[in-house]
Amino acid sequence: MLYVQVHLTLPAWVHDEIDPAARFVSDEDKVALAIRLSQRNVELDTGGPFGAAVFDGDGRVVAAGVNRVVQHNCSVAHAEMMAFMTAQARTQRFRLNDDGRRYSLATSAQPCCQCYGASVWAGIDELLIGARSEDVEELTEFDEGPLPADWVGELERRGIAVRRDILRDDARRALAAYSARGGLMY
Amino acid sequence: MLYVQVHLTLPAWVHDEIDPAARFVSDEDKVALAIRLSQRNVELDTGGPFGAAVFDGDGRVVAAGVNRVVQHNCSVAHAEMMAFMTAQARTQRFRLNDDGRRYSLATSAQPCCQCYGASVWAGIDELLIGARSEDVEELTEFDEGPLPADWVGELERRGIAVRRDILRDDARRALAAYSARGGLMY
Repeated sequence: MLYVQVHLTLPAWVHDEIDPAARFVSDEDKVALAIRLSQRNVELDTGGPFGAAVFDGDGRVVAAGVNRVVQHNCSVAHAEMMAFMTAQARTQRFRLNDDGRRYSLATSAQPCCQCYGASVWAGIDELLIGARSEDVEELTEFDEGPLPADWVGELERRGIAVRRDILRDDARRALAAYSARGGLMY
Repeated sequence: MLYVQVHLTLPAWVHDEIDPAARFVSDEDKVALAIRLSQRNVELDTGGPFGAAVFDGDGRVVAAGVNRVVQHNCSVAHAEMMAFMTAQARTQRFRLNDDGRRYSLATSAQPCCQCYGASVWAGIDELLIGARSEDVEELTEFDEGPLPADWVGELERRGIAVRRDILRDDARRALAAYSARGGLMY
């Protein structure tokens, strides 16, 4: 059988973009970073219009993610998945909050069905969302996939608080800009 | 910002286990391989009790997957996710069936919420399942997470046929054997 491995990277600019000493205190600060990553990813042609970041309880970035599906030929490489995987690689924990601290994921747009499921296992305490699913489907041709009817309640029952519509207008503008550029939809 | 990448591997024995020329014709042949991978993964202490494989329309293995969550400190590294990512890495397509051919995923147990969502995007035409979710939750302490109420219908409406209970008793025995060994639950 052919040996094959999975190797996923973030574009180099992501690492330069984020000051590891900076603190992102408010929910808006955190989602603003996710939206900026989504915009830069499009401008620099390194992936689709989605960004995300994992923050610790002090508001410091543990890891970031941008969409890399096309670049890596990998349908798993959504922004949220990249953020979870790189955060877990840095901390060497498969459940981030197993150290007893609190972690948040901020994302430029509501997680799709895959990233939703991944959020259940990643070890976060809070999910901070910019654009809604209907914004993604209105402004782009991306599909968000099937979710449980009470997707927010299902997360909250598992100890993951959900806050939506954070900088929603900014997040919508980033999605619209992608479509205006004629970005690839998949 | 700290540079960090994601690098996931299958254990070397997986590659030795599978003859790339072999054809797995029936649904039972395909799920039997997934179950065998789940058992070997436990016996060889290379991950949790879950196996999966992607097959092309001729029944040849495109790629396999086993659970690697603990080994890679990565909550994404479920068997189905590893199979999708390695199949896409081999074919260099982020949607497997974009080449107009048919692909199946066989899995030893019903996909959890994360792998369910990933199945929507991976480009498969068919999902073949051994153990049920309730078997996993009865025989191990693994949680399967929240799914849409009509999870089968949601896949079928997107062109993914679902067949369940294939070699279910064998799949249940593999899960029970893991628990009997006192395998780690997470």
